[in-house]
Amino acid sequence: MNTSSIRACCERRVQALAEGMRERGLRLVLLFDRDNIRYFTGFRVNRVVSSVLAVSVDEGPAHIVARLDFDRARQDGWIDRIIPFAEDTENPLEVVRPLLAGGVRRIGIERDAVTLAQAGSLEALAPQRMELVDVRGLTAGLRLVKSEEELDALRRAASIASEVIERVRQAIRPGAREGDLSSWAEHLIGEAGGEGASFEPFLMSGKNAWLPQRFSSRKALADGELVLFDMGAIVDGYCSDITRTFAVGEVSREQEHLFEVARAAHDAGIAAVRPGVPAGDVDHAARSVIEAAGLGERFPHLTGHGIGVSSHEAPIADRGAPTVLEPGMALTVEPGVYVPGIGAARIEDMVAVTAEGCEVLTSAPRGLRPGEV
Amino acid sequence: MNTSSIRACCERRVQALAEGMRERGLRLVLLFDRDNIRYFTGFRVNRVVSSVLAVSVDEGPAHIVARLDFDRARQDGWIDRIIPFAEDTENPLEVVRPLLAGGVRRIGIERDAVTLAQAGSLEALAPQRMELVDVRGLTAGLRLVKSEEELDALRRAASIASEVIERVRQAIRPGAREGDLSSWAEHLIGEAGGEGASFEPFLMSGKNAWLPQRFSSRKALADGELVLFDMGAIVDGYCSDITRTFAVGEVSREQEHLFEVARAAHDAGIAAVRPGVPAGDVDHAARSVIEAAGLGERFPHLTGHGIGVSSHEAPIADRGAPTVLEPGMALTVEPGVYVPGIGAARIEDMVAVTAEGCEVLTSAPRGLRPGEV
Repeated sequence: MNTSSIRACCERRVQALAEGMRERGLRLVLLFDRDNIRYFTGFRVNRVVSSVLAVSVDEGPAHIVARLDFDRARQDGWIDRIIPFAEDTENPLEVVRPLLAGGVRRIGIERDAVTLAQAGSLEALAPQRMELVDVRGLTAGLRLVKSEEELDALRRAASIASEVIERVRQAIRPGAREGDLSSWAEHLIGEAGGEGASFEPFLMSGKNAWLPQRFSSRKALADGELVLFDMGAIVDGYCSDITRTFAVGEVSREQEHLFEVARAAHDAGIAAVRPGVPAGDVDHAARSVIEAAGLGERFPHLTGHGIGVSSHEAPIADRGAPTVLEPGMALTVEPGVYVPGIGAARIEDMVAVTAEGCEVLTSAPRGLRPGEV
Repeated sequence: MNTSSIRACCERRVQALAEGMRERGLRLVLLFDRDNIRYFTGFRVNRVVSSVLAVSVDEGPAHIVARLDFDRARQDGWIDRIIPFAEDTENPLEVVRPLLAGGVRRIGIERDAVTLAQAGSLEALAPQRMELVDVRGLTAGLRLVKSEEELDALRRAASIASEVIERVRQAIRPGAREGDLSSWAEHLIGEAGGEGASFEPFLMSGKNAWLPQRFSSRKALADGELVLFDMGAIVDGYCSDITRTFAVGEVSREQEHLFEVARAAHDAGIAAVRPGVPAGDVDHAARSVIEAAGLGERFPHLTGHGIGVSSHEAPIADRGAPTVLEPGMALTVEPGVYVPGIGAARIEDMVAVTAEGCEVLTSAPRGLRPGEV
């Protein structure tokens, strides 16, 4: 997206936030969650870098950034008010003090993104008691249903992930190392134009997959193993997430069976995604297939999670999850089975809820071997 | 390290923590910081994965992990008591309740690693008011002076970073893209046996460096630009961090001068590292060189930071920082100058304080071009 369309898009988002603040009687919100800050500012920063976005109903947004990011934020960002802070000072939130002028006492924050230390630093700024009000529901609500522009970014992120995971599948062979394949995938994401990986990718083989290890090790793939690869890309700030299961050489009938159970559960999960259905029904549809195969105990996680600016966000598709799906919501469907001594199988795709059902955003073939769909 | 030496090493660390707890009258500590958990357990998890380490003076450690990590923690970890929690449940900390039996009311936590939401979940478990006591000073204190084993891991991490950044330097040429060089470096880290990058590496050229952007973009390097590359590796859980400045083709005398100022400041910073000196003196030594060159305003960050299981930890070497250096402390020295229209120059090395002065752990040549030291 170009700068003027980012500006227009982010301004609309900040206006929607301000409207929600008025409804809640809040004049000031301070956002600490980096994904929320990216959503409202469009401004990319390194993952090690902190910033705070202040939104005042009366004065609009102010972006509080490290001194080192000040020139860039002023030059490249769309927010006019940029406030620099010195990193590693006793109270970096000291710079927030002017925003509290006029006696603002109720401040909206994300309770799951603000530490006790940060809350203490904030409270130290006010002569009288400050009330910190959770606005996670408000910001998560704004992000829950994606716009056409957002769906487009998710499609592009999903497309890169699909292309990269298919290239990794072509490279699966005995002796290749988990970590080398995984870091090669990160390299391919960059080459394809992605900002980077949406999370630390993990390619796990044999025992590392059935435990499961959830990171890529130096282990070499061995003949007869099942391999799980879970990865994603970021494009224009939006994340993708995909998992495929690969066979290294010949695998046993038991391993093929595990894979078929995971694939049938995945089919059932995707078939359950449509507007008006609680997210818990998607979990139930996938889980029932695995339970019917007698493997319910070997599926120790949720079926899916929302995806957008965060790689994990609302809606969650777990047992009994109540969020009713609506067109424009985007989530993963990723049932898996992990059986010690045999292997693990999981297939994960990203879907967007449509008026009729869903659009599958990821497109890599699902089969165990190159050429299998 | 093998499993039995990890066990011995982590058991000593937990004992030291328990001793500090006794001194503070604390019977239970709950650690949420993933780096602290790695330090005390030796157990590696994906960055997206949460866990909690409970240490009871009476009952020893208990590791609270996601259901999906339960089998692996039981099999590969050294801690006998593993408690699984369901991710995305209403209160994942519900599993902590048994640890509060016997009326524990004062609980040690890291105030800068526990969110308001987590603190609320904890407090909801106790019928009477709970007192959350900050133990960051205790854990940071235990980690401040490195053991021989830790220094060895830091040396190996520094060695991989040095080797990788030198290979990237050999590949600097007009037309190469920032992001491709940066992701190639991540790939090389894995090939060299590292666990991965210690932070999102950033290679920045020309304007992206003097702003500075602090992430790698799709921009191609152009003749006559200065390039900054800041990266690091993780080995056995320990981080490295190194920065080098490269010239793309011919650069101007002004650019050469910037580089010479940064290198002289770096020399002065390193020369100031010795036991008995406050960390602020290291900053002062480096900063004075840059100020004497009339570029004080163009050095908008600290001179260095500690490094270990975290890529940024104590001691911080900023203006007036009081921590007195002792043998075994490890930190970076990384003064830089950023001048719009000209370029940026920074050199960063990792040092360990010794009885006499310091050992420079990183070893890549510092010059602007291949063959220059």
